[in-house]
Amino acid sequence: MRFKFSLMAIGLEVAMIVLFRLFAQYEVAQNTSRQLTATQPPKTDSFLRLYPLFQDVHVMIFVGFGFLMTFLKKYGFSSVGINLLIAALGLQWATIVRGLLHTRGQKFHIGIKEMINADFSTAAVLISFGAVLGKTSPIQMLLMTILEIAVFAANEFLVAEIFMASDIGASMTIHAFGAYFGLAVAGILYRSGLRQGHKNEESVYHSDLFAMIGTLFLWIFWPSFNSAIAEPGDDQYRAIVNTYFSLAACVITVYAVSSLVRQCGKLNMVHIQNATLAGGVAVGTCANMDIQPYVAMIIGSIAGLISVLGYKFLTPFFATTLRIHDTCGVHNLHGLPGVIGGLASIAAIAGGVSTTPTMAMQAAALGSSIGTAVVGGLVTGLILKIPFWEQPHDKYCYDDSVYWEVPRLREYEINIHEYEDQKQLEPQIQ
Amino acid sequence: MRFKFSLMAIGLEVAMIVLFRLFAQYEVAQNTSRQLTATQPPKTDSFLRLYPLFQDVHVMIFVGFGFLMTFLKKYGFSSVGINLLIAALGLQWATIVRGLLHTRGQKFHIGIKEMINADFSTAAVLISFGAVLGKTSPIQMLLMTILEIAVFAANEFLVAEIFMASDIGASMTIHAFGAYFGLAVAGILYRSGLRQGHKNEESVYHSDLFAMIGTLFLWIFWPSFNSAIAEPGDDQYRAIVNTYFSLAACVITVYAVSSLVRQCGKLNMVHIQNATLAGGVAVGTCANMDIQPYVAMIIGSIAGLISVLGYKFLTPFFATTLRIHDTCGVHNLHGLPGVIGGLASIAAIAGGVSTTPTMAMQAAALGSSIGTAVVGGLVTGLILKIPFWEQPHDKYCYDDSVYWEVPRLREYEINIHEYEDQKQLEPQIQ
Amino acid sequence: MRFKFSLMAIGLEVAMIVLFRLFAQYEVAQNTSRQLTATQPPKTDSFLRLYPLFQDVHVMIFVGFGFLMTFLKKYGFSSVGINLLIAALGLQWATIVRGLLHTRGQKFHIGIKEMINADFSTAAVLISFGAVLGKTSPIQMLLMTILEIAVFAANEFLVAEIFMASDIGASMTIHAFGAYFGLAVAGILYRSGLRQGHKNEESVYHSDLFAMIGTLFLWIFWPSFNSAIAEPGDDQYRAIVNTYFSLAACVITVYAVSSLVRQCGKLNMVHIQNATLAGGVAVGTCANMDIQPYVAMIIGSIAGLISVLGYKFLTPFFATTLRIHDTCGVHNLHGLPGVIGGLASIAAIAGGVSTTPTMAMQAAALGSSIGTAVVGGLVTGLILKIPFWEQPHDKYCYDDSVYWEVPRLREYEINIHEYEDQKQLEPQIQ
Repeated sequence: MRFKFSLMAIGLEVAMIVLFRLFAQYEVAQNTSRQLTATQPPKTDSFLRLYPLFQDVHVMIFVGFGFLMTFLKKYGFSSVGINLLIAALGLQWATIVRGLLHTRGQKFHIGIKEMINADFSTAAVLISFGAVLGKTSPIQMLLMTILEIAVFAANEFLVAEIFMASDIGASMTIHAFGAYFGLAVAGILYRSGLRQGHKNEESVYHSDLFAMIGTLFLWIFWPSFNSAIAEPGDDQYRAIVNTYFSLAACVITVYAVSSLVRQCGKLNMVHIQNATLAGGVAVGTCANMDIQPYVAMIIGSIAGLISVLGYKFLTPFFATTLRIHDTCGVHNLHGLPGVIGGLASIAAIAGGVSTTPTMAMQAAALGSSIGTAVVGGLVTGLILKIPFWEQPHDKYCYDDSVYWEVPRLREYEINIHEYEDQKQLEPQIQ
Repeated sequence: MRFKFSLMAIGLEVAMIVLFRLFAQYEVAQNTSRQLTATQPPKTDSFLRLYPLFQDVHVMIFVGFGFLMTFLKKYGFSSVGINLLIAALGLQWATIVRGLLHTRGQKFHIGIKEMINADFSTAAVLISFGAVLGKTSPIQMLLMTILEIAVFAANEFLVAEIFMASDIGASMTIHAFGAYFGLAVAGILYRSGLRQGHKNEESVYHSDLFAMIGTLFLWIFWPSFNSAIAEPGDDQYRAIVNTYFSLAACVITVYAVSSLVRQCGKLNMVHIQNATLAGGVAVGTCANMDIQPYVAMIIGSIAGLISVLGYKFLTPFFATTLRIHDTCGVHNLHGLPGVIGGLASIAAIAGGVSTTPTMAMQAAALGSSIGTAVVGGLVTGLILKIPFWEQPHDKYCYDDSVYWEVPRLREYEINIHEYEDQKQLEPQIQ
Repeated sequence: MRFKFSLMAIGLEVAMIVLFRLFAQYEVAQNTSRQLTATQPPKTDSFLRLYPLFQDVHVMIFVGFGFLMTFLKKYGFSSVGINLLIAALGLQWATIVRGLLHTRGQKFHIGIKEMINADFSTAAVLISFGAVLGKTSPIQMLLMTILEIAVFAANEFLVAEIFMASDIGASMTIHAFGAYFGLAVAGILYRSGLRQGHKNEESVYHSDLFAMIGTLFLWIFWPSFNSAIAEPGDDQYRAIVNTYFSLAACVITVYAVSSLVRQCGKLNMVHIQNATLAGGVAVGTCANMDIQPYVAMIIGSIAGLISVLGYKFLTPFFATTLRIHDTCGVHNLHGLPGVIGGLASIAAIAGGVSTTPTMAMQAAALGSSIGTAVVGGLVTGLILKIPFWEQPHDKYCYDDSVYWEVPRLREYEINIHEYEDQKQLEPQIQ
C-alpha cells in the first residue's frame, strides 16, 4: 500500500492546510473583547471553563474509542493506531466542513465549542469504523472519514438549524448516525467467505483487559460528552447528573442480563465492555431536560437490557440472515441505544418536560439521522468497494501484520524459542 | 449463579429507581437562582468549578481501583469488572443513604458534592473488596456493597455531624474504615485450605503492568481526592499542595525501603504498586490544615516506610497467625496509613495548627471509624458466610473462569497451538 | 545494590525535607487575600482555574512518559517504575532549585505555577532517561535527576530572566535541552559491546500496546502542556488551538511518511508511538503567538516528517558512527523538533507576529539550551561512569530482573508448564 496510502494522506493534509489558510481564523472576540467590554467576561473565560470538558471528550475519542477496539487478539495496532489516524484527520476536516456550513462559505472562527464539535464529529466515523473493523484498509478509512464527515455535518446542520431539534448528547446525530452509516458500509462490503467466522476474530485474555481501558474512560467521561455543549447552568448541570445515574443503572442491568442470557450464568466480556455504555448513549438526547434522575436510570436500564439482547440475538441474525457483519456490534452499543435516545426525547416532550422542540421536530431528527446515514453509508460502501483501495484478502482480515510491521517475536514465539533453548539446556542442568 | 445473581441485581436496581423516584431531586437552587439573585454567582458556577475534581476522583474509583487489582494473573476480568459493578451500585445506594441521613428522611437534592461523596463512599467498599479479592462471588459483593455503605454512611455522619471532627481526605472514614471492614470480613471468611497459598495467587509480567495503570492514576489524582470537598480558598489550596508533596516524598522512601528489606536489594512490584500511595492516605485527615509542606513530606515518608514494612512482615503474620488473609494488603495501603492520618491530625492540633476540631474529637472519629468498621465487617462476614451466595471453592479461587466466560484461547494456549502448527509445517518449509 | 541505592534515596529525601523546612512556604496571598482585597479575585481562583491543566500535565509526566517507554519486552517495570522515581524526586528538587533561583536564596512560595513548573522540570530528566533507557541503574538515575535539574533550572533562568526569550511550550528549554543532555550522557556511557544490538532491545506485541497508552495521553494533553503557564486570555487560547491542530497535522504526515520509508509500505509502531508527538514539541515555542492555525499545521507536518526520517536514518547513524546509542530515539522526538520549535519562533518573529522577544533573544535561548545541555550532559556522564553506581553489565541491559523481583512465572513460562501438564494429561483424556 506504500504509495497509494502515503500520497492520499499527504494530499489530504495539504488540502487541509490550504483550506485552513483560506477559511480558519482565531476567535475574533479573543482579540478585542477586553478592550471593548471590560465589564463583560471575555470569551476566554468561557474557553477555559469548558476546556476540562473538552479534554474529557478528547480522552474518550483517542483512548476510549481506540482501546475499546483492541479486544481482537491480533488487531490492537490497527485498532488504536487507525483510530488515531481517523480522528486526527476527522477533526481537521470537521472543523472546515462545519465552519463553512455555519458561515455559508465565509471565514469561520475556532473556539472551544468548535473544537468540541470537531472531536464529536470524529466519533461518528469511529463508530462506523467499529462496524468494519478488521475488514478494511487504512486507505479505505481515510476515504470513509472524508465522506462520512461531510454527510454527518449536513445531517447535523439539518437537525439543529432546520428542524431545530434538541440532541444535546447526540444520541441521534452521532450514535445512531454512526452506527447505521457503518452498518450500511458493512452490508455493501459483506464477505461471504467470512460467514463461518474467522480464526483471528476473537480476543485473548490481555486484549480484553486492554479493551477495558477504553470502556472505563468512555464510561467515566460520558457525562462530559453529554454536557459539553449544553447551555451553562441548569441544562449543563442536568446533563451531567442524568448521564451519571443513567450509566450507573445501566451497569447493574447489563451484569444481570449478561448472566441471565447464558446457560451457565457466566458474565460475558463483550457485554461488559460495550453494553455498560449504552446508558450514556440512550440518555443523550434528553440529558439536559428536566426528566428527573430516576427517569434517567430507567432509560439507562432499558438501554442496557436492549444492548445485551442485541449482542446475544441480533448480531448473529445480522451476520447470517441480513448479510451485515458488525465486528464490534456497534448496532447494539450505538444504533439501538441511539434510537432509544430519540424515542425517549419524544416521550419526555410528550410528558411535558420541554416545549421548545416539539415531538415532530425530534421525530424528524431521528428519521433524518437514520435516513442520511443509510444512504450515505450505502454510497460510501460502493465507493470503498472499488478494488483499488487495498482491501485485505479474507485470509488476512483481523490481522495487523498486513499493514503494520509487527514485532518479529510475539510473546508466543518467544515462548517457543525459549522453550527450545531451555530444552537444550536441561540435560546440562540436570 | 445464573438466577440468584441476576435476580438480586435486578431487584436492587429496581429498588434504587423507586427510592430515587421517592426522594431524589435536582438541586433546587439550579432552577431559580438566576431569576432571584442575579448578583450572586449561581450554584451552577460552583458545580462546574468542582466538576474537574469530581472527574479526577471518578477516574480514581473506576480506573484506579479497578486496574490496581488486576495484578493477579487470572483475575483481571473480575478485578476490573466487579470493581465497576460495586462502584456503580454503590454510588446509587450511597446517594440515597447519605441523602436520607442528612435530610432526616426528607427529599434530598443532588449537587456536585453529593456526586463526589457518592464516589467517595464506593471507595470504602472497593478497599474492602481488595481484602477479599479472589475469594468471593459477585453476589457476595452486591450484598457487601449494600451493607457496608449503610454502615459507612452512619459512621461518616457520626464523625462529621456529631463529633464534628475534621477528615477532609477521609483517611479515617474511608481508608481506615474500608480496610478494617474488609479485614473483619476476610477474617470471618478465612479458608484454612488456602493457608499454604494458591497457585493462582500471583502475578505475571503484564498483569503487573496493568496494575501500574491503576497505581499511577490513583497517585496522580490523589490531590483531587483530598481536596475535592474542602472549603474553597486556603483549605482547598493546602489540601492539594500537601498531598502533592506527601506523595512525592512517599515514593522515594518506598523505593529505598523496598530495596532495603530484600536480601538481594531488588525492588518489589507489590510495594511500588501499593505503598507509594500510602502518603496520600496518611496526609488525608490534616491535608487542609496549615501544617507546612515539609510536615506533609514527613507524614508521607513515614506512611511509605510503615506500609512497606507492613507488606514485608505484617501481611504474612496476619495470614498465618491471625487467620486473616488480605489479598491486596489493604491493611498496609489503607489501614495503617489511615490510622497514621488520624494520629497526624491529633498531633497537628496539639501543635496548634487548628482549634476548631479538638484532639478529643479527632480521637473519637478515629476510634469510631475503626470500631464501626470491625463490628460492621464481622456482621457482614457472617451474613456472607451463609452457603447460599455461590462462594467459590478453594480450588477455583483467584480464577476468573468461575464467573466469566474467559476467551477460549488464552495467549499461552495459542502458543501451543501455533507451536504445533509450526512443527507440522516445518518439514515442508525446509 | 541494596545499601547504596537505599541510603542515597533516603539521604536525598531527608535533604529535601530539610530544604523545604528552611525555604518553602504556602502562597502568602492565600492567607490574606480575602480579608484585604475582597473586590479582587483571590489567588485561589487562579489556583483552581489552572488546576485542571496542572492535572493534565501530571498525567503526561507519570502515565505519558512512563508508559511510552514500556515498549521494551522485558523492561516495563523499570520504564514505568524508574520514571515514577525520577519524577517524584525531580519535582521536589525542582521546586527547591527554582524557588531559590527566583528569590535569590530567600524563602519561596508554592503556588499552582510552581507545581506546574516542577512537573515541567522533571520532563527534561525523563527525556534524558529515554536516551539511556535500559543501560543504567536506578542509582545513576537518582544522580542524574539531581544534576540535570540543577543545570536545567540555571538554563531556564538564563533564557527567561536574562535573555527574556519566549518559550511557552518549552520546546527549547525542556525538549531540546533534555534530548541533548541525554545524548551527551549516552555518548559518554557508550558500550561497544552493544554495538551489534541486544537480544532484549525489542518489543513484543503487548508491550507496544502498553506504550500506546503513554503516546495517547501525551498526545491528548499536549495542548495543556503548551498552554499551562501562558498568560490567561488570548495567549492561552492560541497555545491550545495551535497545539491541537499542529498535532493533528503531524499525525497524518507521520502515517504517510512511515509507510513511505519502508519498502513494503507497512506502518512502523516506533514512528506512530513517537513521531506523532513531534508536532506538539515543535509548535511549543511559538504556540501562544498569533501565527494562525494553518502555520501551526505546517510546523506540525514538518516536525512529523523530520522525526520519522530521524528514526529511519539518524538513529542508526548515531549509534554506529557517532557512538551515541539513543534507546528511545529522543533525538527524533524531542531534540530535532525542539530545534525546529526554536527556529519556528525566530521565523515567526521575523514574520512580524510578535515584537517583545527579538530574533536574537530567541537564538540565544536556543543556543544556550543546547550548549548547557551538552556540557551538563558530558559532565554528568563522566560522573555516572564512575564504576561505583551499579551500572548493569552489557548482558543484563534492557532486563528488569537485575533491579526488580520479576514474577517467577512470566507468561511464557506458564505456557510451557501448562503445555507439559497438558501433554501428560492428554493420553488420559483420549
